[in-house]
Amino acid sequence: MKVFAAELIGTLTLVLFGCGSAVLAGDQVGQLGIAFAFGLAIVAMAYGIGHISGCHVNPAVSFGAFIAGRMDGKTMLTYWLAQFIGATIGAGILFLIASGQNGYDVAVDGLGQNGWGTGYLGEYSLMAAIIFEVVATFLFLIVILGSTNLAAPTPMAGLSIGLTLTAIHIVGIQVTGVSVNPARSFGPALFAGGHAMSQLWLFLLAPLVGAGLAGMKARFGLLEKDPS
Amino acid sequence: MKVFAAELIGTLTLVLFGCGSAVLAGDQVGQLGIAFAFGLAIVAMAYGIGHISGCHVNPAVSFGAFIAGRMDGKTMLTYWLAQFIGATIGAGILFLIASGQNGYDVAVDGLGQNGWGTGYLGEYSLMAAIIFEVVATFLFLIVILGSTNLAAPTPMAGLSIGLTLTAIHIVGIQVTGVSVNPARSFGPALFAGGHAMSQLWLFLLAPLVGAGLAGMKARFGLLEKDPS
Amino acid sequence: MKVFAAELIGTLTLVLFGCGSAVLAGDQVGQLGIAFAFGLAIVAMAYGIGHISGCHVNPAVSFGAFIAGRMDGKTMLTYWLAQFIGATIGAGILFLIASGQNGYDVAVDGLGQNGWGTGYLGEYSLMAAIIFEVVATFLFLIVILGSTNLAAPTPMAGLSIGLTLTAIHIVGIQVTGVSVNPARSFGPALFAGGHAMSQLWLFLLAPLVGAGLAGMKARFGLLEKDPS
Amino acid sequence: MKVFAAELIGTLTLVLFGCGSAVLAGDQVGQLGIAFAFGLAIVAMAYGIGHISGCHVNPAVSFGAFIAGRMDGKTMLTYWLAQFIGATIGAGILFLIASGQNGYDVAVDGLGQNGWGTGYLGEYSLMAAIIFEVVATFLFLIVILGSTNLAAPTPMAGLSIGLTLTAIHIVGIQVTGVSVNPARSFGPALFAGGHAMSQLWLFLLAPLVGAGLAGMKARFGLLEKDPS
Repeated sequence: MKVFAAELIGTLTLVLFGCGSAVLAGDQVGQLGIAFAFGLAIVAMAYGIGHISGCHVNPAVSFGAFIAGRMDGKTMLTYWLAQFIGATIGAGILFLIASGQNGYDVAVDGLGQNGWGTGYLGEYSLMAAIIFEVVATFLFLIVILGSTNLAAPTPMAGLSIGLTLTAIHIVGIQVTGVSVNPARSFGPALFAGGHAMSQLWLFLLAPLVGAGLAGMKARFGLLEKDPS
Repeated sequence: MKVFAAELIGTLTLVLFGCGSAVLAGDQVGQLGIAFAFGLAIVAMAYGIGHISGCHVNPAVSFGAFIAGRMDGKTMLTYWLAQFIGATIGAGILFLIASGQNGYDVAVDGLGQNGWGTGYLGEYSLMAAIIFEVVATFLFLIVILGSTNLAAPTPMAGLSIGLTLTAIHIVGIQVTGVSVNPARSFGPALFAGGHAMSQLWLFLLAPLVGAGLAGMKARFGLLEKDPS
Repeated sequence: MKVFAAELIGTLTLVLFGCGSAVLAGDQVGQLGIAFAFGLAIVAMAYGIGHISGCHVNPAVSFGAFIAGRMDGKTMLTYWLAQFIGATIGAGILFLIASGQNGYDVAVDGLGQNGWGTGYLGEYSLMAAIIFEVVATFLFLIVILGSTNLAAPTPMAGLSIGLTLTAIHIVGIQVTGVSVNPARSFGPALFAGGHAMSQLWLFLLAPLVGAGLAGMKARFGLLEKDPS
Repeated sequence: MKVFAAELIGTLTLVLFGCGSAVLAGDQVGQLGIAFAFGLAIVAMAYGIGHISGCHVNPAVSFGAFIAGRMDGKTMLTYWLAQFIGATIGAGILFLIASGQNGYDVAVDGLGQNGWGTGYLGEYSLMAAIIFEVVATFLFLIVILGSTNLAAPTPMAGLSIGLTLTAIHIVGIQVTGVSVNPARSFGPALFAGGHAMSQLWLFLLAPLVGAGLAGMKARFGLLEKDPS
């Protein structure tokens, strides 16, 4: 129960701070500011709720942990439920705040949703979007599964994971807006509709593929140091 | 006595660095720079005075700790007094420095005060301002009460709390200028007057509501890991 | 084998995130954003793979460790091979993603390669480029060899090394684009060709000189505290 | 001897990275980038040489430690010598690199020197400059002396001190360019001459005053927790 609340609040925070920075402050803070908002939301929650649930706040992270053999399937589904609900509530709160600005129109201004192709930021192709999301999630999970390994200095894990997400956002906002997290894509898409919904499939699937590959690497002990 | 001085200096620093970045350097560093100045002021003081007073430097944080049962009422009032005095002195020093620039006029250029509505940054509604301040303070306190929990890696707490405040500022400067701290709003309002004073009530109350909700969550053990 | 894979993935990440930020997002995030992407890529990998291989991801770092007597020559060559292959794959993935943008032309837009002189960023002289790369790599290695010294607080090493690389990039992108890492220069040059290839020699040699000097300093115990 | 070399290299790095970011990259990275370059130079050296000399790299820091009773007078003078020499060499290297850009003229473009009044950045008054430098150095030393106190989590000290310097620069670059460090002001002034030399006295004296006040506070045990 505490775990469920922790994952819900954590994912809510990621969407509210991350997508919120794009919607409420994107013109002022730029893509570097958005990248820090996403990453620091993870830093916040890693130390705020990490001791309760491990702070996955991302269905792909839970899936990677499941594939790596660190989490059973039933627990993963509980995490998923909390994450999708949290992301939806986070997007809802963001929608309420954004609506408080004169002239805000979700159909035009969006809610920080992901996408690709004509009319979306850098106008990258579907292929570029798939490659980016799979590779970025794979590398994200390498950091997560590696830095929470007992051989690594674990108190630093939350910080390094959050700053990794910042780096990923610096590189990839132009390409897809950066998902690497199905729940983070789901919440805003629900409110934004349109392309955000019709393109949602990629942001549900690609992160799971990347996370699964990293999870398999971890399962075969490839993220652990050889005994010496 | 040391505790009083520590909280006074810490809150002074938060106002001088945070509001100071907006007043003295806002045009140069942008809202991302202001967000880092607020957050890094907390990082500075968390390690500089945290071992003396816990570095609350925020009446809402002390209130949350009180509701959580981690602080008695009398001590909280001592902290509050130090924080409001520190914020006032910090705003005073900032006023002195800002006055050293030819053409500076506090009535026009302000002193980093909070606000909402017509003429204030993103011109958000009262409702948006209330939602933002309550939710942001609630999440801020979740991080503070969670990361200073014994189960969390406490040496990292100061850093994660400061970077959380940076994330909150990236998202919310356009909405209210971000308070989540009644003392931080009080100091500049005293010098700026006008709207800053007539809108001050929201920034005294909303952070306390958010902090109180998080404190109740902590009181019922919801921020602690289940025994295993 | 795990070590080889770790160094390969680490160097791949450095090139994909670092050079990727310049190619895909340079106009949006600016040189400060690029500097953080390079530095945070190191933070990511230091905690993700550092426990496996030490996260050199840089032939100059391995060379410095070799000169310092911390690594034998055969192991260094294995590291070098993994690093050059990783950098090439990273540049290849980046080339694939960048090609997904309508109108992207590697001959014109480049792939984050290093350089100097007419037409390259700040148009600095060859002499300035050599001085910068030698001095910056020397100081980078002082931090690496010093912070991984047993007397230093090693859990912080990965963070401090990554943030050092950020500082170096803030200062030097205008001068050479910042190499301090032969592999990081090699990968993009392979795809970009032209000046990137004809100027590559400097970015293979200068970092090794700087790293060798720091390594000699470490070998003679000058980076260790005197016994007291 | 190792201590002397460590302080020399550390101060050299601070000037080369900090002032270098202003001279070589100021137009590209802005004042936020400059603020991070100064702060991250300290993070770099705190973990690179901190275990050897404590990484003062600032005569005001050594003076504060002396007043606090943590360092004897003779050792302080040795530190001072190393710091002023290091700052001068750092400024010299920077001068060499900057000279490699066509059209660079130190008399016009400067070398990152400090100042105030007509023609200097925000054109603040002498009084504003004095208040800022004294208060900022005082608070900087509170963080340094507090976070290196045994009761504080010392592995974090280097990071928190560096990020404090970043916050101070975000706030104060417009006012004085931020010294809080006599050596950092001395090196560039030597090469820049003119106003940088005639205004140098303030940046030699004001930081010592601020540091001395903080040192006295520490000497009387006011930065240590009461025994409980």
